[in-house]
Amino acid sequence: MSEECIRIGTAVPYDVRIGPGLLDRAGEALSALHRPCRTAVITDDTVAALYGKRVTESLAAAGFEPMLWAFPHGERHKTMATLTEALNWLADSGLSRGDLIVALGGGVPGDLAGFAAAVYCRGTDFVQIPTTLLAAVDSSVGGKTAVDLPAGKNMAGAFHQPRAVLCDTDVLRDLPADLVRDGSAEMLKYGMLCDAELFARMADGSWREDIGGTVARCVAIKRDYVLQDETDRGARQFLNLGHTFGHAAEKCSGFTLTHGQGVGMGLMMASRAAGIDTEPVRRALQACRLEPDVPFAPEELAAAALSDKKRQGGRITLVLPERIGACRLETVDVSALPDWFRRGAGCPSDKGA
Amino acid sequence: MSEECIRIGTAVPYDVRIGPGLLDRAGEALSALHRPCRTAVITDDTVAALYGKRVTESLAAAGFEPMLWAFPHGERHKTMATLTEALNWLADSGLSRGDLIVALGGGVPGDLAGFAAAVYCRGTDFVQIPTTLLAAVDSSVGGKTAVDLPAGKNMAGAFHQPRAVLCDTDVLRDLPADLVRDGSAEMLKYGMLCDAELFARMADGSWREDIGGTVARCVAIKRDYVLQDETDRGARQFLNLGHTFGHAAEKCSGFTLTHGQGVGMGLMMASRAAGIDTEPVRRALQACRLEPDVPFAPEELAAAALSDKKRQGGRITLVLPERIGACRLETVDVSALPDWFRRGAGCPSDKGA
Repeated sequence: MSEECIRIGTAVPYDVRIGPGLLDRAGEALSALHRPCRTAVITDDTVAALYGKRVTESLAAAGFEPMLWAFPHGERHKTMATLTEALNWLADSGLSRGDLIVALGGGVPGDLAGFAAAVYCRGTDFVQIPTTLLAAVDSSVGGKTAVDLPAGKNMAGAFHQPRAVLCDTDVLRDLPADLVRDGSAEMLKYGMLCDAELFARMADGSWREDIGGTVARCVAIKRDYVLQDETDRGARQFLNLGHTFGHAAEKCSGFTLTHGQGVGMGLMMASRAAGIDTEPVRRALQACRLEPDVPFAPEELAAAALSDKKRQGGRITLVLPERIGACRLETVDVSALPDWFRRGAGCPSDKGA
Repeated sequence: MSEECIRIGTAVPYDVRIGPGLLDRAGEALSALHRPCRTAVITDDTVAALYGKRVTESLAAAGFEPMLWAFPHGERHKTMATLTEALNWLADSGLSRGDLIVALGGGVPGDLAGFAAAVYCRGTDFVQIPTTLLAAVDSSVGGKTAVDLPAGKNMAGAFHQPRAVLCDTDVLRDLPADLVRDGSAEMLKYGMLCDAELFARMADGSWREDIGGTVARCVAIKRDYVLQDETDRGARQFLNLGHTFGHAAEKCSGFTLTHGQGVGMGLMMASRAAGIDTEPVRRALQACRLEPDVPFAPEELAAAALSDKKRQGGRITLVLPERIGACRLETVDVSALPDWFRRGAGCPSDKGA
């Protein structure tokens, strides 16, 4: 079967390789990038049990000296405390800054291991091996790493580009339905943002016939935004489509809604707030098993959004669809947010009609 | 009195301003760089008591919204735990990434606050206000930030350049003798490295007649090395003169020797190991109240150095004086380190005579 390769032209360019069997070819793939060295695999307990042995065996077979450390799975472990444990494990294992770190897993291990790599010895090379659809199309690409603080998600982190991303499509094919659903929300987002054809493939389910090709398309879209704006002050904000609205929903749910479920609702709210026809969005979300309707009141959502870090000096930038495949940025005063949330939830606006 | 200004031409250039009264003109200085905003001053309890109020009052007078957080002084608080507290304080104070952080104090607050700024919201602007001679001539310049891990000093950190460095020479003039001594060691290092005239000024004490000018010369020297090598993989290694040897002495003392005292002994060991005349070095160290002779056995020192993070793939780079004002790099196998330490301590070499 074929392999896709997307080159990311950051200051130090790297490849996102997307294809079958890459988990068992990880060692071979890294050989092309790095001399044999100590290689510290950081993952969570779930992923360690599923794929840890295959990755470390592949690394050892290629002459690397693998070590593996796993922390308990789940967003609530993406903390400074876990980061500190990871750093102490790296130091106690004698890893030097000329060695390698591997971030293996979904968004949580990817973000945490990437952040550890960013700060260990002030920057150590690392490789992403995403094992969820969400990590494959979103969090493993672009160099954003982070942990959460009690005050908010991803509030401490760094921009640190990986040396390579290895995305094994066999792993993506085996995912449980809820992980497919969470990734689909981000893939729909890319479609709404700039690719009506991708949106259609997500809406009619045909993307499942070419997972590798679809993931590659999403990665290429993300790359194009990231390269315009490596440190997230301009064009990269487009990638927040559905996120200001959706993140508020996640927060209101006490994070019982997943990120993907939040983004799904966010796409619907953004579409409604922007005044475009929401029926195609609703149908596409349902085809991806995502609930379109947000179960919280606009006032609640607005209050959650207002405590978000994206607020800056009293202004916030919203991403608003103009049609499927085209969006615009609109910077609004935070005082206008409750009104935007009312429109997103389909309630009459204060400044109304 | 005159003010010196050294421009550091990193990707985003910034000025190191060195002159009298800058503590009370901090707000005015920041006004030229940044719109009025929340400004989070991070310092230690000692410095907070001495200068906290003057800095926050100056900021407030210039229209900034200052807040101050102090942690207990001392290297043993330069930890991931203190960093986590600092980040939570920033988040709980509602600081956004468009606001400002001020690192106020010596090397410890500078390194820790700089690291917090590097990772808070994945990078927040910050300003260094060094209040010790060591911080003024060394740690506040060049963008290295860090905390210690139990396994070693500065093992977690980031490269994050400040927006400005404000160095108040009135503060430097008031320093207690032990802080002057610690800074002098780094200043002597710059002299040995590339400036025989600076070395002479340190050795005869005349530098005290022009503290601002001498600090400015040291900053300019550091700048020239940093700009050649912003992320510390090449020429910047010259700045480690005296540090591999000296850091081993610090370690052997259980860190009862200060960094400056260690570097002082390190300069002597490096000179002896390189085979240059050590008498001028001894006299200069004594003039700066630094003890030239290391009180540990070469075997002990070598063992301490071997556990150091600077070891990379079995090789280590030593900085060796060729004469006062000129040094060279020599990369040696770690197995040769005990021999280098014997020569540094004035013992006959194994590979002998």
